[in-house]
Amino acid sequence: MTGSEASISEILARLVAVTSFDDVAAHAHEGKRSILNFLATALGSSADPAVAMAMATLAPLGGPPACSVIGRDERLDLLGAAFVNAVSANLLDFDDTHLETIIHPAAPVAAAALALAETHGCSGRDVLTAFILGVDVECRIGSAVSPGHYARGWHITSTCGVFGAAAASGKLLGLPAEKITHALGIAASQSAGLVENLPSAAKNVSVGNAARNGIFAALLAQNGYEAAPRSIEGPLGWARAMGDVLDLERLIRGLGRDWEIAANTYKPYPAGIVFHSVIDGCLKLRTRLAIDAVESVTVSGSPLLLARGDREVRNERDARVSIHHCAAVALLIGAAGVSEFSQDAVFRPDIVAFRKKVRAELDLALPDGASRVIIRLKSGEEFGETVVAARGSLSDPLSDADLEAKLRAALRQSGSPWNGECIIAAVWRLDELADMSSLLRHPRPAVAARGAR
Amino acid sequence: MTGSEASISEILARLVAVTSFDDVAAHAHEGKRSILNFLATALGSSADPAVAMAMATLAPLGGPPACSVIGRDERLDLLGAAFVNAVSANLLDFDDTHLETIIHPAAPVAAAALALAETHGCSGRDVLTAFILGVDVECRIGSAVSPGHYARGWHITSTCGVFGAAAASGKLLGLPAEKITHALGIAASQSAGLVENLPSAAKNVSVGNAARNGIFAALLAQNGYEAAPRSIEGPLGWARAMGDVLDLERLIRGLGRDWEIAANTYKPYPAGIVFHSVIDGCLKLRTRLAIDAVESVTVSGSPLLLARGDREVRNERDARVSIHHCAAVALLIGAAGVSEFSQDAVFRPDIVAFRKKVRAELDLALPDGASRVIIRLKSGEEFGETVVAARGSLSDPLSDADLEAKLRAALRQSGSPWNGECIIAAVWRLDELADMSSLLRHPRPAVAARGAR
Repeated sequence: MTGSEASISEILARLVAVTSFDDVAAHAHEGKRSILNFLATALGSSADPAVAMAMATLAPLGGPPACSVIGRDERLDLLGAAFVNAVSANLLDFDDTHLETIIHPAAPVAAAALALAETHGCSGRDVLTAFILGVDVECRIGSAVSPGHYARGWHITSTCGVFGAAAASGKLLGLPAEKITHALGIAASQSAGLVENLPSAAKNVSVGNAARNGIFAALLAQNGYEAAPRSIEGPLGWARAMGDVLDLERLIRGLGRDWEIAANTYKPYPAGIVFHSVIDGCLKLRTRLAIDAVESVTVSGSPLLLARGDREVRNERDARVSIHHCAAVALLIGAAGVSEFSQDAVFRPDIVAFRKKVRAELDLALPDGASRVIIRLKSGEEFGETVVAARGSLSDPLSDADLEAKLRAALRQSGSPWNGECIIAAVWRLDELADMSSLLRHPRPAVAARGAR
Repeated sequence: MTGSEASISEILARLVAVTSFDDVAAHAHEGKRSILNFLATALGSSADPAVAMAMATLAPLGGPPACSVIGRDERLDLLGAAFVNAVSANLLDFDDTHLETIIHPAAPVAAAALALAETHGCSGRDVLTAFILGVDVECRIGSAVSPGHYARGWHITSTCGVFGAAAASGKLLGLPAEKITHALGIAASQSAGLVENLPSAAKNVSVGNAARNGIFAALLAQNGYEAAPRSIEGPLGWARAMGDVLDLERLIRGLGRDWEIAANTYKPYPAGIVFHSVIDGCLKLRTRLAIDAVESVTVSGSPLLLARGDREVRNERDARVSIHHCAAVALLIGAAGVSEFSQDAVFRPDIVAFRKKVRAELDLALPDGASRVIIRLKSGEEFGETVVAARGSLSDPLSDADLEAKLRAALRQSGSPWNGECIIAAVWRLDELADMSSLLRHPRPAVAARGAR
């Protein structure tokens, strides 16, 4: 790339600046599905101690509580609310997944966009447009550095999410392309987050920061802060420092015509996406045999599956990225919902014992996301199941009704006082909402309904 | 490192938890010198538009304005003040330098420690101890990944500063070793900042975040957030993701006995540290020749000097990391203070013209920080000067009086209403201050004195 060509930040910023709702209207429904799924997972985790701890840390330091914390009565300032809502949406790894990159696109972008929409009185169309653009920016940058980026230890939802949040925020603030360019460059200097920290609360910090710092980048750019022109692709810029060689062709392929939101997927199970085929395989096998007769379970998969999932299980976070736990609950209980990854399930003696029967094995012939489960009975008999496209993947997507059910189940799980039916109805007519904040400000059940819960 | 050995976070956290003021008392004076220099550079930049823009962004979103913004009347909340004070201290690259790593140690650590001291009523001894420990942690981690880390594009003051700020904050909060361990792990997930962005305001963002996020990490750990045990050295942790192989021997060498603060240095010139030998050489040569007679200037140095300094000068930030500008002002004006790197100086026609006479040349025989200046006159006559240890380096350190003069000059430059003599006196007796905040809360000149300025 010569000095006279547009930089990556400029190319992406121009897209963000010029794109209108009409340009992305064909993808508005997928945007709504993503936002519904985001709200479902944020509601589901809204009572989690990790959310409460983050709020306890931020509330005394924060400014005017102008923004909703999803599922809760307390409110926080703009940056604090964006942080906490991204944390809760991503907490259980139950949010959406862009399969090419394993980015969870909505948590950083929707958390930033919804908080800004509340303080700036944006319409539902504004939010949908900004959200789709933010997802496009984060997933395009992520695709250009995949699969090496994640494999090297970068938590790609955090490291690329900050670009998406900056893009969406710049759009909602109505910044011109030049200032969005700077916002993306400022985002590059805030890009952080480690895979090593995934089984700990430190993961939440980088995901929350991605949303918070994306808004911060856009506000700084609005107020006059600038970034180096080639902060992403320059010789001492983001990609080189991160250890990546950018696939520029992938980054700009179909820009403004093809939208990454179309490749978004939603999870039926609150486990790492690569474990979904393991769960599917086990659920299928379960109907064919008596669990008491199982001697051993062998799960084969790609290096990604084994690198992430062949681990000791000491807590709920481990369980959600454990081959052994996913196989155990699917086979023993026949389900893999939020309850099956709770602390009770992690330490339930029969599950602990069954996890020990599960062995992980590398199979280089299997693509990422696929797995083969072979169950050997004490009799010596063997049963096998290979799943390449898991439920919830692009070729077997969750339906709108599945997503609604997921939100209702999340509300029951968390005990949040928010009104699920009101939220579901508002999301489906998001493009008609004049003021987005109406979605978040009054989602309480009527008193009678509340008493009836 | 086997699973049973202590992790890097644990080793450093234990040091932080067990060390008392008495253990570091022998280095208290160097700590005071560092803090004086930090206050000098923060005061000098307190009226800079970059500081004002950051305040304009943060003030409306922030909480109770409990903390001083150095050199200004307005105050900000804890996290906001830490951000802005780190920004102003580092803005002109005029702050301290740990030469082995090129870390500016004080900006992230002192900004975090002073802000926390104000909200938590800490003593001067508490602050000195926490500061020395924070500097030790950031510089040890930085040393263990140098020189590759910076060379790859990581702005090491930002990426390692967050660890130092977390360590100092954990100490001031009185956290036990276990929670400081988590704070350091949470810091790892917030480590960010790019060399590519150095010539832009985006640099400020990563430096400010290092201070802000260090406090945030410690507060989150205090409230129960945890991190992975090996977030720094694990297979998908900080060092591997950053592209580094940790030099563990260097990281722990002399831990608790040798203190990195002893290797801190202070700049006589507000330019990148590697350009100081260029300025020294030019100042020496200037006395031996008539400037009008100069035909060309050749500056030779290591790859680091050329990588950073052989650049086009478009603004003040470029000037501070330009071989050409440093040589031009030293030779033409005979000085290299804040004025010589101002916008006026950058665009002064004679300086612009003189910069074009300067050529940079690689000399692999010269160590980092050294340079050789050869001036060729129109007559063909040549003069040369090689400087290995620049003024302000460990072998030619600034005196206490030099540091006081630097603070006074900074105050004159910025026009801040803060009282320099009051600050200088308070810093020298920092170990006697019962409440640190007295240093920052009342540093105004008396009315009469103010009128006389």
